[in-house]
Amino acid sequence: MGEFELIRHYFAAASCARAGEGVALGIGDDCALLELPVGEQLAVSTDTLVEGVHFPGNADPFLLGQRALAVSASDLAAMGATPIGFILALTLPSAEPDWLQAFAAGLDRMAQQCALGLIGGDTTRGPLSLTLTVFGRVPRGQALTRSGAQVGDLLCVGGELGDAAGALPLVLGQCQLPDAIAEPLLARYWTPQPQLDLGVALRGKATAALDISDGLLADCGHIAAASGCALRIELARLPLSAALLAAAGPVAAARHALSGGDDYRLAFTLPPIHLAALQQAGWPICVVGDVVAGSGVQLLNEAGVNIEQPRSGYQHFGKPSD
Amino acid sequence: MGEFELIRHYFAAASCARAGEGVALGIGDDCALLELPVGEQLAVSTDTLVEGVHFPGNADPFLLGQRALAVSASDLAAMGATPIGFILALTLPSAEPDWLQAFAAGLDRMAQQCALGLIGGDTTRGPLSLTLTVFGRVPRGQALTRSGAQVGDLLCVGGELGDAAGALPLVLGQCQLPDAIAEPLLARYWTPQPQLDLGVALRGKATAALDISDGLLADCGHIAAASGCALRIELARLPLSAALLAAAGPVAAARHALSGGDDYRLAFTLPPIHLAALQQAGWPICVVGDVVAGSGVQLLNEAGVNIEQPRSGYQHFGKPSD
Repeated sequence: MGEFELIRHYFAAASCARAGEGVALGIGDDCALLELPVGEQLAVSTDTLVEGVHFPGNADPFLLGQRALAVSASDLAAMGATPIGFILALTLPSAEPDWLQAFAAGLDRMAQQCALGLIGGDTTRGPLSLTLTVFGRVPRGQALTRSGAQVGDLLCVGGELGDAAGALPLVLGQCQLPDAIAEPLLARYWTPQPQLDLGVALRGKATAALDISDGLLADCGHIAAASGCALRIELARLPLSAALLAAAGPVAAARHALSGGDDYRLAFTLPPIHLAALQQAGWPICVVGDVVAGSGVQLLNEAGVNIEQPRSGYQHFGKPSD
Repeated sequence: MGEFELIRHYFAAASCARAGEGVALGIGDDCALLELPVGEQLAVSTDTLVEGVHFPGNADPFLLGQRALAVSASDLAAMGATPIGFILALTLPSAEPDWLQAFAAGLDRMAQQCALGLIGGDTTRGPLSLTLTVFGRVPRGQALTRSGAQVGDLLCVGGELGDAAGALPLVLGQCQLPDAIAEPLLARYWTPQPQLDLGVALRGKATAALDISDGLLADCGHIAAASGCALRIELARLPLSAALLAAAGPVAAARHALSGGDDYRLAFTLPPIHLAALQQAGWPICVVGDVVAGSGVQLLNEAGVNIEQPRSGYQHFGKPSD
């Protein structure tokens, strides 16, 4: 089965179901065509996932499809963008119908959840990897960048951290845990929930934002560098799930929250005046620190003393670089 | 050297040089932001090139960078789109400075030639492959799709065909030829020239268009299927270069022109009324056939008899699928 048949056969459902607003021409021509409402900008991001680096070999194709799109859609959330669509570039060693069907179903599940339509693709033969490019739209000037953090802002995250890193030993089959603990951790790894609605709610309020993919410490470093200020994280304020604490204990749980990748929660800086209204509206916002003059990231213990950072960033599967 | 340093160090020049019109935010945030003039649509396309499938192992990195972007930019030409920018997703087994520097220089050369700025990227570790996503803009309703060919239109191509396929034995080191023959063929393989200006000139005139990547026969089949008509190709009208005829002889040259991939010339259907003015304006337009009622592609010999198609499509490097 050739390139064209592959795409048409297995991804037709994802394409047809939601070639909606903003997509003037979808799969099947040399380019897709997108339209934007007047006054809006297009947000676009690309992520590649490679077998053995970003996900384990022999990963369940349904879970892989879900996770790949969630990881990419999370970049739209981090910009406060409304989803439009995505392009899938799929490289795979052979065209196995069962694998493709399950992968397409997982992709479709997440596409529906995120309101993203498949607008184009390329299928090539080679070692398994996926490159997803996602498209969203955001009113001009309202995108959440990394560069606007101000001294006095609160440093916030969109929920509990570290679960995905805590799930890694389970994902890799290195340990077993009771279902009540394992299942919520594995769900955070395989089906991260892109915080798209939260991103939109933060437009005009958050001064800087990103999604946590390399770990809170490393990613806060990106905001600090882009904004020209220092971010302080209070160890005691890290939101940790009961499952993670049960699986890893408090010390490793905090380490996962600080340096574990793959959380895909939003981290953002927020002027204090906006906090109460957002929390009252039900948004899952946890304050974990604040923005001060200086540079870099400070990690404060319960006495308010800056302690050494355990790791500078997340290395996928322990490889020397990703 | 990690992901972020790689991108910043080697691709900074390509980024800074041309983050121009239409790019509101380039490399370094969760998403790039693009803007469109009112009344224009965004054209977007993704292509993946895998080592050993789409280009030979140990390919010269400068030539590879040039070619990869040219191949992708050709999809913009095929839509009649004006280039804006591109995203590079680069997967490579190790970060070798010499390789990266040469690759970035080749990419930059073609980016300047095509007026495309680098607006984002992702660098991952794994078997060598490149996924390029290109962005252009086109006035609403003027994009050249595959679906508008009309009975009575001329079938045209943007210049000589088959040179890239004729170069393959040279690329693979399977033969040697005098420089006067080898050089123009190798140039067509390694530095195809995206026909961006021709694509813009065809707006409002061509009824259907694409760029020839799978071979004239196979690609004309895509126009025929999308437009609901038949395309006739006259064997005697195929434009063949002197170098290709010298290297391959007339029979193999015609086969390369019909079924060889990687030409990246435009093929398009044109109402006869537009031909003279376009040719007088200097556009390299060769009429190779016409559009008739029916379906599929017909290949006519000099007596006007439909002869068998030698191949249905191009197989990169002879692999069972692409």
